[in-house]
Amino acid sequence: RLLLLLSAAGLAALGAPQPPNILLLLMDDMGWGDLGVYGEPSRETPNLDRMAAEGMLFPNFYSANPLCSPSRAALLTGRLPIRNGFYTTNAHARNAYTPQEIVGGIPDSERLLPELLKEAGYATKIVGKWHLGHRPQFHPLKHGFDEWFGSPNCHFGPYDNKAKPNLPVYRDWDMVGRFYEEFPINVKTGESNLTQIYLEEALDFIRRQQAAQRPFFLYWAVDATHAPVYASRPFLGSSQRGRYGDAVREIDDSVGKMLSLLRTLSIAESTFVFFTSDNGAALISAPSQGGSNGPFLCGKQTTFEGGMREPAIAWWPKHIPAGQVSHQLGSIMDLFTTSLVLAGLKPPSDRVIDGLDLLPTMLQGQLTDRPIFYYRGNTLMAVTLGQHKAHFWTWTNSWEEFRQGIDFCPGQNVSGVTTHTQEEHTKLPLLFHLGRDPGEKFPLSFASTEYQGTLSRITLVVQQHQDTLVPGQPQLNVCNQAVMNWAPPGCEKLGKCLPPPESVLEKCYWPH
Amino acid sequence: RLLLLLSAAGLAALGAPQPPNILLLLMDDMGWGDLGVYGEPSRETPNLDRMAAEGMLFPNFYSANPLCSPSRAALLTGRLPIRNGFYTTNAHARNAYTPQEIVGGIPDSERLLPELLKEAGYATKIVGKWHLGHRPQFHPLKHGFDEWFGSPNCHFGPYDNKAKPNLPVYRDWDMVGRFYEEFPINVKTGESNLTQIYLEEALDFIRRQQAAQRPFFLYWAVDATHAPVYASRPFLGSSQRGRYGDAVREIDDSVGKMLSLLRTLSIAESTFVFFTSDNGAALISAPSQGGSNGPFLCGKQTTFEGGMREPAIAWWPKHIPAGQVSHQLGSIMDLFTTSLVLAGLKPPSDRVIDGLDLLPTMLQGQLTDRPIFYYRGNTLMAVTLGQHKAHFWTWTNSWEEFRQGIDFCPGQNVSGVTTHTQEEHTKLPLLFHLGRDPGEKFPLSFASTEYQGTLSRITLVVQQHQDTLVPGQPQLNVCNQAVMNWAPPGCEKLGKCLPPPESVLEKCYWPH
Repeated sequence: RLLLLLSAAGLAALGAPQPPNILLLLMDDMGWGDLGVYGEPSRETPNLDRMAAEGMLFPNFYSANPLCSPSRAALLTGRLPIRNGFYTTNAHARNAYTPQEIVGGIPDSERLLPELLKEAGYATKIVGKWHLGHRPQFHPLKHGFDEWFGSPNCHFGPYDNKAKPNLPVYRDWDMVGRFYEEFPINVKTGESNLTQIYLEEALDFIRRQQAAQRPFFLYWAVDATHAPVYASRPFLGSSQRGRYGDAVREIDDSVGKMLSLLRTLSIAESTFVFFTSDNGAALISAPSQGGSNGPFLCGKQTTFEGGMREPAIAWWPKHIPAGQVSHQLGSIMDLFTTSLVLAGLKPPSDRVIDGLDLLPTMLQGQLTDRPIFYYRGNTLMAVTLGQHKAHFWTWTNSWEEFRQGIDFCPGQNVSGVTTHTQEEHTKLPLLFHLGRDPGEKFPLSFASTEYQGTLSRITLVVQQHQDTLVPGQPQLNVCNQAVMNWAPPGCEKLGKCLPPPESVLEKCYWPH
Repeated sequence: RLLLLLSAAGLAALGAPQPPNILLLLMDDMGWGDLGVYGEPSRETPNLDRMAAEGMLFPNFYSANPLCSPSRAALLTGRLPIRNGFYTTNAHARNAYTPQEIVGGIPDSERLLPELLKEAGYATKIVGKWHLGHRPQFHPLKHGFDEWFGSPNCHFGPYDNKAKPNLPVYRDWDMVGRFYEEFPINVKTGESNLTQIYLEEALDFIRRQQAAQRPFFLYWAVDATHAPVYASRPFLGSSQRGRYGDAVREIDDSVGKMLSLLRTLSIAESTFVFFTSDNGAALISAPSQGGSNGPFLCGKQTTFEGGMREPAIAWWPKHIPAGQVSHQLGSIMDLFTTSLVLAGLKPPSDRVIDGLDLLPTMLQGQLTDRPIFYYRGNTLMAVTLGQHKAHFWTWTNSWEEFRQGIDFCPGQNVSGVTTHTQEEHTKLPLLFHLGRDPGEKFPLSFASTEYQGTLSRITLVVQQHQDTLVPGQPQLNVCNQAVMNWAPPGCEKLGKCLPPPESVLEKCYWPH
């Protein structure tokens, strides 16, 4: 009982030798509805379901953006993409990320979680996808990580190494090969050993830090569930859900092995583990290469619930009581603040931090009122406060894209809501009650007292947010073919340097 | 370990005093996605979730019809509505049920579960909605039940007792009042004590049978989640999901109290409990009066998954291993056969029984191949075999109804699938893989080898079904205002007899 109420600081005061290890498991394009514990009908995630049964499940947990890079930048900075620069102003309400031709990346002025934890004595490692910029100044080892095994961008490909280079895989400072070359992904069969490699990297790191008695921060950012999805041979064909399900099974199995290692090493009770995803399932890749957002509307790229509501499980045996469900509105940015508090640190006070400390929620069941903001580029599309969500803009994608078969909401169509033109509702927002109507199908009547009361509460919160907002320098506006991964550090030793084309700065084109 | 492998017959051989009690909990219009354990985001069903954790969850369990009466007739007869007569031939592919003006009901030739269990020494009771016909010859006490507390039809109303009488509530042979009169339902506030009364009836029956050391069959068919939904005062406003959620919470609480009583009386291990629903959530009543079908397509009235896939939990401590999930394709009709086997009986051999014995599934984890048939009236609309589903006809409802706002698939629209004209696909069925695509959004390509192989397997099964099918006499074709509940037995004692209008037989009109 006493233990449950102790913060990390409290533990330290009791003479606990060190703050807890922190293991963040970040999925790629995995949807709210992809785990058995969230109702996936095939129920193929026994390890994650068990993790939830032993920990705390968050049904109302959100990413900070419906797209990968901004969401990951928000996780590591504790700040909305509009503050940390991970957005574009090239067109109205556009999603943007870090493809190979992006010039920008995480600004040096941002203070990243590994950087801060390192100062507190943590050993830090990122396994998998970085996605915060791939030019030298953005390298994760320049932003607080001691170790890296993984890639700076998405595993798209294979490319011809002429128009576009295959993506490099790094070990620490240097590349050690490229996807589709030294690190094969067979897009025809879906076979790749990458998740096994990422698992081994994680297990090895955990074992080494435990042996060295050093607290660790491990950021396990695997990408097998991002199209083109992949799994290793033992998992291929193992799922009832097709190739996407095979990838989920392998990840579930890997999480089971990590938690099992923590138990074996007797550090389960001194390791805080959190599982979530970077954005909603990419329904555009469904059914064989995309996941499920359960009962929610649309998916990745959109600011409907399917785009940003995420599976989320916290696990810390003997600290977080088992089998709990918290309806706290949570954000991926809270992992920044919570991790700092766990480490006995205070979040930076010289800037706005959007993340909350979730420890009072996880240890004492406390609920804190807070808004969830849904941005697309620098446009505030929607906000959730309590059970209510207001849409200020609605858009899925353009008619032009939609007619070409690009559909972010397959099989779903809510008149006036899943619009293919950008519809402004800033004067009269569309309001939904997410408890009664999690699928955002039934807008509240403008004439209802519920609408009026809710709107005034939400308007206040939004005004305060917008009045005090200082947008960061947008990082995702400028592209250049010459900055692609032609000749990453270490390429000489491998004989894998490629000649870059002429440097031409261009405005990046963001279609949706 | 030994116990797990014993059938009821085996238990008897060991000298067990009597076969297990059977408690069937049948919900009304509750959807697959309405329980926390099935992913409902508000997670307000702790007792049902615990029941699942202590028992076996079926994610692939089906009703026998997308509408109430036929589904309930199928449960109690173990036979498809097309066999037991609970269908109409008045128009092509129409759902039908037992409104007050229906002339038909359960034929005497059908052998009902309570009738058979009674012969094996069971005390039998129905609490709640009968829905198998309300004329004297259809009375549940004429079909095997010893006791009844509840109503023959839906709790629609209030009526004026002139054009239409309010529905009677029976205790055993006689009416004891009417809905909206002696048994109030406030459609404005949603308040009604009915679930509490139904709970008390159940607890009292269980206590009496335990005292008498008599095995019992209790069929608890509550209807608080059928529009107009209701809850008693302590539950009103208690849900994050609105009034529908209040009704669910009260039912969840009631189920908890029933299981708790079984434990207190030390008969948990000698009582088989099964929880399911009669058809999918009535999305037409959403969001405040309708439930959720989770990730599935459409709802009640349709032969898409949302219309017929149901929540289903089996609970029998020390017999059914705790925390299991079975992917057996299950049917509400299996409860007929399974209950008989539990009682040491054999299903009738003089007729086709569609229900399977699920004990090998529940006790030993066995999986049995079997088709699920989806009918609308006498039209076979679809069939599921393994992971594949074939649609021979697609229809939601008519354009005429749809334009009036009657929508069985709000917010959902799958081109060529959720059609508003009856589309025939008997020559070239639409095929879906329900594992990869539970939402029936992505029909298989006609040219794929998966399509070809699946179609030939399904065609065989359907041909065999149709070649040997002998439809029962349709019971839901003829209506008559004079047969409504004007003067049910017992009305004289209460002074509540109403004069019937002239008897005029009419063809019932079934719009969808």
